[in-house]
Amino acid sequence: MTSLPPPQPLDWTGRRVLITGGVGFVGSNLARRLVDAGAQVTCFDAFVPNDGAELFNLDGYLDRLRVVRGDVRDTPAITAALEGQEVLFNLAAQTSHVESMRDPRTDIEINALAQLAIVEACRSVAPRIRTVHASTRQVYGRPGKIPVDESHPLAPPDVNAINKISGEFYHLLYGRIYGSRPTVLRLTNIYGPRMRVRDARQMFFGWWIAQALSGVPFEVWGGHQIRELAFVENVVDALIAAVAEPAIGQIYNVGGEIRLSLRDLAGRLVAATPGAAFAIKDFPADRSLIDVGDYSADDTAFRAATGWAPRLSFEDGLRQTLEFYHAHRRPYLEPLR
Amino acid sequence: MTSLPPPQPLDWTGRRVLITGGVGFVGSNLARRLVDAGAQVTCFDAFVPNDGAELFNLDGYLDRLRVVRGDVRDTPAITAALEGQEVLFNLAAQTSHVESMRDPRTDIEINALAQLAIVEACRSVAPRIRTVHASTRQVYGRPGKIPVDESHPLAPPDVNAINKISGEFYHLLYGRIYGSRPTVLRLTNIYGPRMRVRDARQMFFGWWIAQALSGVPFEVWGGHQIRELAFVENVVDALIAAVAEPAIGQIYNVGGEIRLSLRDLAGRLVAATPGAAFAIKDFPADRSLIDVGDYSADDTAFRAATGWAPRLSFEDGLRQTLEFYHAHRRPYLEPLR
Repeated sequence: MTSLPPPQPLDWTGRRVLITGGVGFVGSNLARRLVDAGAQVTCFDAFVPNDGAELFNLDGYLDRLRVVRGDVRDTPAITAALEGQEVLFNLAAQTSHVESMRDPRTDIEINALAQLAIVEACRSVAPRIRTVHASTRQVYGRPGKIPVDESHPLAPPDVNAINKISGEFYHLLYGRIYGSRPTVLRLTNIYGPRMRVRDARQMFFGWWIAQALSGVPFEVWGGHQIRELAFVENVVDALIAAVAEPAIGQIYNVGGEIRLSLRDLAGRLVAATPGAAFAIKDFPADRSLIDVGDYSADDTAFRAATGWAPRLSFEDGLRQTLEFYHAHRRPYLEPLR
Repeated sequence: MTSLPPPQPLDWTGRRVLITGGVGFVGSNLARRLVDAGAQVTCFDAFVPNDGAELFNLDGYLDRLRVVRGDVRDTPAITAALEGQEVLFNLAAQTSHVESMRDPRTDIEINALAQLAIVEACRSVAPRIRTVHASTRQVYGRPGKIPVDESHPLAPPDVNAINKISGEFYHLLYGRIYGSRPTVLRLTNIYGPRMRVRDARQMFFGWWIAQALSGVPFEVWGGHQIRELAFVENVVDALIAAVAEPAIGQIYNVGGEIRLSLRDLAGRLVAATPGAAFAIKDFPADRSLIDVGDYSADDTAFRAATGWAPRLSFEDGLRQTLEFYHAHRRPYLEPLR
């Protein structure tokens, strides 16, 4: 499977692309791909401490794209960055569920208020911009049954999901009323090179990987929960495919290449990593309150609309991920040692 | 029907009740009823110019309740007002759909950010408070079919509906996580004594009534749209009934006593008002973008949970409304003349 080249459904040569959160995990992987495809990429990122931004994510590309340090909450800054852009990949977000409960005000500012500022800015300086807005499976809360399709009721289990719902609605509303062209993708758990692994803020799996590579036994909370994992290269394919999606104004689930229990996921990681080990622990109280149980995505609609499917297998994704962190311990893992 | 006394499913004697928006249309009618039932009522209201607050709404009751001038966006003020309260009727809102598009920032501040402040305040000073939170049928957008029950997808047609959805979710989330006891009611178009009639900001029907009573022909936009109208006394019954609703943490539609087209509604008003007349006009462009077509409520679930049903007929409601404005032209109608 790895021999397939990445699909390029659009000619990106010279296309002007803004990526919010462009120095973070998914944003940087997307930026690298788009630069390779010939796009003129601007990465807009607030470099919020302990979030995903890491300048090394763009290593080797810093002379081929533009990095703007700016916060989506800063209306003049995001407005200036949007001017003249053709495509917006809107990935900047507060993504920590636990943090959203500790500091709900910051979450609403980034995931709701700033989204309003972005769509207002598009309205004034880029009214026909094509936007791919990243949302999350978290909006469904604890699913009634899996796999979950887009008609599942919204049941946000935490502050983060409430505000992500607002953000989706803002993009779709302004598209319908003012003529911008949004597509919303509800993403699942994403892993791969350039993910934050210093802690579990971005995704538990990153933290597991860091500990596994450092020979520290990692904890698996519960273990029975089903998750759907998406390798970042497959997600980058999906983000790019979404730009060519013809219906505009839709919400799509985008799933991953594997669904498995956390216990099985831990087993796969340990099997692939010499010296790694894990232990099953009870769920901490503050987590169990906002836990969503099992999740897997029904992304039939997105596949039908775009032809997208996961291109790389979980085996390939995990191998590439571990190789990446082996090769680049310093920027991602060093403080652990 | 009018001879039935208002139901009092709870003993309100000495109960400490806070009503946000308590000097507005629905809030003041509720406050008067609860004072009559023996409750210790505090009306918290920002007196936002051109919104619903009108001190005359509490005429005859000002020595029997407490009025606090305060804004739900002011966290210390709402926190102080919540301290020691047993029941919160949370009616304060920005309610104008058109205004929410003109000034989305104010709408998000009142209908989303301030709701977060309210639930945080409850968490700190009134953790077990019983909250009845007023939401709106607008969250459903343009219905797929009518009547609409609570499982209808959320499809906010304007900024106001997006933020009302956030508000609902905040109340329910904090109830589930932190133990407050919310019930959300999605209300329909409410009319009756003490509604704002100087313009169409609160509800088109108030503006029609003002013009009808002043002998000025009023405009009906479109006219075919089905609406469900709820007399405010029936809505006050529902708000009070919701407090005794046992399930807690639920969302319920609350409908009205009549569903009819706007053309028929205008006809009923003209027939009841000597000298009144109306003309059918095309929908203005800024309105048609956010119009929701037909709406009627399926409120079976709320009726089953509480035993509530509309007590007063539309004929009674319209008659009482017109009598009220005949008797109290000065505070409500004078600027029209």
